[in-house]
Amino acid sequence: MDKKISMISVLRLGHRLKRDERVSTHVGLVARAFGAGEIIYSGDKDNNLINSIRKVTKKWGGPFRVRHEKNWKGVIKKYKKNKFSVVHLTMYGLPVEKRTRALRKIKNLLILAGSEKVPGDVYAAADYNIAVTNQPHSEVAALAVFLHELNKGKETKFRRAKIRIVPMERGKKVVEK
Amino acid sequence: MDKKISMISVLRLGHRLKRDERVSTHVGLVARAFGAGEIIYSGDKDNNLINSIRKVTKKWGGPFRVRHEKNWKGVIKKYKKNKFSVVHLTMYGLPVEKRTRALRKIKNLLILAGSEKVPGDVYAAADYNIAVTNQPHSEVAALAVFLHELNKGKETKFRRAKIRIVPMERGKKVVEK
Repeated sequence: MDKKISMISVLRLGHRLKRDERVSTHVGLVARAFGAGEIIYSGDKDNNLINSIRKVTKKWGGPFRVRHEKNWKGVIKKYKKNKFSVVHLTMYGLPVEKRTRALRKIKNLLILAGSEKVPGDVYAAADYNIAVTNQPHSEVAALAVFLHELNKGKETKFRRAKIRIVPMERGKKVVEK
Repeated sequence: MDKKISMISVLRLGHRLKRDERVSTHVGLVARAFGAGEIIYSGDKDNNLINSIRKVTKKWGGPFRVRHEKNWKGVIKKYKKNKFSVVHLTMYGLPVEKRTRALRKIKNLLILAGSEKVPGDVYAAADYNIAVTNQPHSEVAALAVFLHELNKGKETKFRRAKIRIVPMERGKKVVEK
């Protein structure tokens, strides 16, 4: 029987105050919306960022955890010790479509989502360097498409949501509890 | 025989100088990397943004066009006249997985990628309001997953590239022409 993925964590590398605020927020929201269980921000400590993701989870449901860790190397080391496989999303890696089937069998995944400059040793620390197209685009897009593929496009179910959208052809419909 | 999509345009709504710079850049790069033929930026005119996308296309290949149009309503009107169907990506719309099969048969698509506040009449102007999950996340992610689904995950081929990545298990390999 296949082992199923039971925990997906996302580690955002090298967050910088101000400059990365919005992109890092998008990375966190994508992690949550596409089925990861947590996001860890490394780089600058940014309480606004962390609070904004927590607010979304409180309103739209979870479970989804957020925290800051200064030392990304320490995070990778700890997760590897806890039997996580490490996937680094990079335009230089092997095409995602050639690896998803294998990756779906892994039990625990730590996904590294880089910012502009990723240190060379990230490539060595990762078990898999995976490219979502070998073109320059966006870590937000790479994470979304990767998780979407990993979950075969299945939508994540959220618990304890205070608010929920009723999909519509036109207009906005929201149900509050 | 099915009509195949022959032209995909992306219209980024309401770009604001400084504040949206990076996210709008990501939207443009995603449009190119995932197979759209052009991006039109509405809102503030931002020559840096336009030049940065053009530079990427010059280096990594095209064809891919970029331009600014102040009036997004005018763009939609013109494209509708030219027999484009208009898809608005919004968390309030119908799930993408229920619509992709139908959308793949459309010949010309104009995809609207909103910024934070989208005016209500965008919902009415669109032929399809499509949600990539009904959760809050990112217009960058929504566009990427939507185009990825539309193209069934097939990678876009680029012409006249000056640089190309050779996918690798570890490290970076780039070929320049």
